[in-house]
Amino acid sequence: MSAGQSLRRIRERKPLVHQITNYVVMNETANATLALGALPVMAHAREEVEEMVALAGALVLNIGTLSPHWVEAMLAAGRAANERGIPVVLDPVGVGATSYRTETAHKILDQVAVAVLRGNAGEVATLVGVDAEVRGVEAIGDSGDSAALARAAARQLGVVASVTGAIDHVSDGERVVAIANGHPLLASITGTGCMSSAITGCFLAAADSPLDAAVEALVAFGVAGEDAARDAKGPGSFHVGLYDALAALDPETLEGRARLS
Amino acid sequence: MSAGQSLRRIRERKPLVHQITNYVVMNETANATLALGALPVMAHAREEVEEMVALAGALVLNIGTLSPHWVEAMLAAGRAANERGIPVVLDPVGVGATSYRTETAHKILDQVAVAVLRGNAGEVATLVGVDAEVRGVEAIGDSGDSAALARAAARQLGVVASVTGAIDHVSDGERVVAIANGHPLLASITGTGCMSSAITGCFLAAADSPLDAAVEALVAFGVAGEDAARDAKGPGSFHVGLYDALAALDPETLEGRARLS
Amino acid sequence: MSAGQSLRRIRERKPLVHQITNYVVMNETANATLALGALPVMAHAREEVEEMVALAGALVLNIGTLSPHWVEAMLAAGRAANERGIPVVLDPVGVGATSYRTETAHKILDQVAVAVLRGNAGEVATLVGVDAEVRGVEAIGDSGDSAALARAAARQLGVVASVTGAIDHVSDGERVVAIANGHPLLASITGTGCMSSAITGCFLAAADSPLDAAVEALVAFGVAGEDAARDAKGPGSFHVGLYDALAALDPETLEGRARLS
Repeated sequence: MSAGQSLRRIRERKPLVHQITNYVVMNETANATLALGALPVMAHAREEVEEMVALAGALVLNIGTLSPHWVEAMLAAGRAANERGIPVVLDPVGVGATSYRTETAHKILDQVAVAVLRGNAGEVATLVGVDAEVRGVEAIGDSGDSAALARAAARQLGVVASVTGAIDHVSDGERVVAIANGHPLLASITGTGCMSSAITGCFLAAADSPLDAAVEALVAFGVAGEDAARDAKGPGSFHVGLYDALAALDPETLEGRARLS
Repeated sequence: MSAGQSLRRIRERKPLVHQITNYVVMNETANATLALGALPVMAHAREEVEEMVALAGALVLNIGTLSPHWVEAMLAAGRAANERGIPVVLDPVGVGATSYRTETAHKILDQVAVAVLRGNAGEVATLVGVDAEVRGVEAIGDSGDSAALARAAARQLGVVASVTGAIDHVSDGERVVAIANGHPLLASITGTGCMSSAITGCFLAAADSPLDAAVEALVAFGVAGEDAARDAKGPGSFHVGLYDALAALDPETLEGRARLS
Repeated sequence: MSAGQSLRRIRERKPLVHQITNYVVMNETANATLALGALPVMAHAREEVEEMVALAGALVLNIGTLSPHWVEAMLAAGRAANERGIPVVLDPVGVGATSYRTETAHKILDQVAVAVLRGNAGEVATLVGVDAEVRGVEAIGDSGDSAALARAAARQLGVVASVTGAIDHVSDGERVVAIANGHPLLASITGTGCMSSAITGCFLAAADSPLDAAVEALVAFGVAGEDAARDAKGPGSFHVGLYDALAALDPETLEGRARLS
């Protein structure tokens, strides 16, 4: 884990992070990407995704507002990324709420080698076949043992599983890292899960391994959340402060602020 | 009218409010929904809308950025909501500006039982066949007698009509309630009409009747607007403050601040 | 150049500015348009774009998140605008990054008379056939001589070329105006290029010529950026302040603050 070094690399190299994501959070994940120091690009047309992803340091697939053309583009972009060795993040937003989402997430996992799967406990539990309460797309409480869930998902799905909640758990199937950074206000605005996936994409373009990237991204995002909460009066001012805090993250002190176990 | 009690219920039950809405305001209406205390979900694919709406406490249909697939999904979701007794809000954004919008709004009103129609005076006037000035999607001045308009729309269209403007008028065809809460800065940012429709959806999932829900939603949103205006330096800071103010709404004092007649 | 007079006209006449733009920035360009004093409308359905643009004072075409239906609608709206003498702005977002974007931009330039082409140096260079570094959609450094580039683009493409960067250059093929207003924080959030195109649309509906409109828009937007930067703590608070600053622009002092050469 060397979050500071990876952050420094992101700001020096400014990797392009191609995001095929949902309509609700596009502006927000683009701005989070920029605030951290990378370059976002949103492109979803079947006509251009393969060419665009070839320019990218990472690809983020987010199924928050699906439709058939978009699924097709995600699969094409994911396969093109795989061919070029470009790491892929999958955010299975709302999996379990409808069968269309569940089928689509499984289709992506089947056809695309996903480096990091980033979801909340309900979503990840659904994908490993554990019953979970999923209502819509917002996290509604942690499942009992998200450390075990992260390890099981990593083994079963062949990914680094990044299960976020009050305490985040990241696993490559062997190790499990718990990250206690963050702030409850992160749950008060939509898209913070999606932002953490986008930031995972940024770190994938810079870190030493997918496990490191997933952990470092959650440390960086969690620390920014802590900083943003300091002067927030509610979800609106917290949201604004989050971009300021991401841009102000200090590579020198970042690792010292990580709360890992 | 018991806005405080309904707000308390929203925060306890956290109803899912399914929104098929326009691209411009998706993030904003989702965040307004969350700030109030409910759970938003945006889903528009024909493949999943019926399954998603079955999980919801209310459905909001907003025609701000139309296209044929979306219209189809709105109709399917609306019918599925009707079958399950889930209340539907229709926001006929820009009706009157183009015939496609006008036809679509009428099609929805014909095929779906709408609980609350929430629009500005020009939009509602168009739907009841009164000539009105509609240019684009932003409200451009109140029509002469929006109380009479609300009553006429309620009777003719079989809905609770919620006509918003400097003074809002809500009618079930019998009673007309005027709501004087709000602030001129609400007209300085895009999507505040759409937010008020989303918040109407939240209250529909908790109030005693559609009339109550429509009135309570406009009281809550108007009071939040008043609070947000206090420290605003312009439309940007007002917008941010609006989410803070929605989250800070106090069920104990809300009814006392209602300016009804 | 009479930025103050044009701004006064925009606020008096409140022209409708029809924008067919990308998903990422729709809310932001609508709010920038409103903050300046004009009325935005987003509509992209083939079924309504010709009717909508007929109500507008200007049309803005932005190819930031393309797909075939949207391209079709842009072409139809552009031709309808031309027939009615409504000025068109083209923002060729990400041209050069993929051939789909490059082909689409050329198709629009071939089939639609574009009044102002607003892009960064890499995008405009691509369109005039000069090799340029384009990675994704964010500007990544100025090309060597953007004054010469603006003049060449204006001549070759038959447009007013508005090439933005640290120093902006606007040319009608004869004159070249350099604008030194603005602030580095404008590059820290996504969509500021798109906002400047939307604001160019607002000024096209009010200024004496396309060249004036393009220059005045960049002066107004740049001055707002300078004002917003004053109290910003980072990209988030800068973004919020930008809308406040656009709304607070003073027609009396605007021209005095222009830094032209």
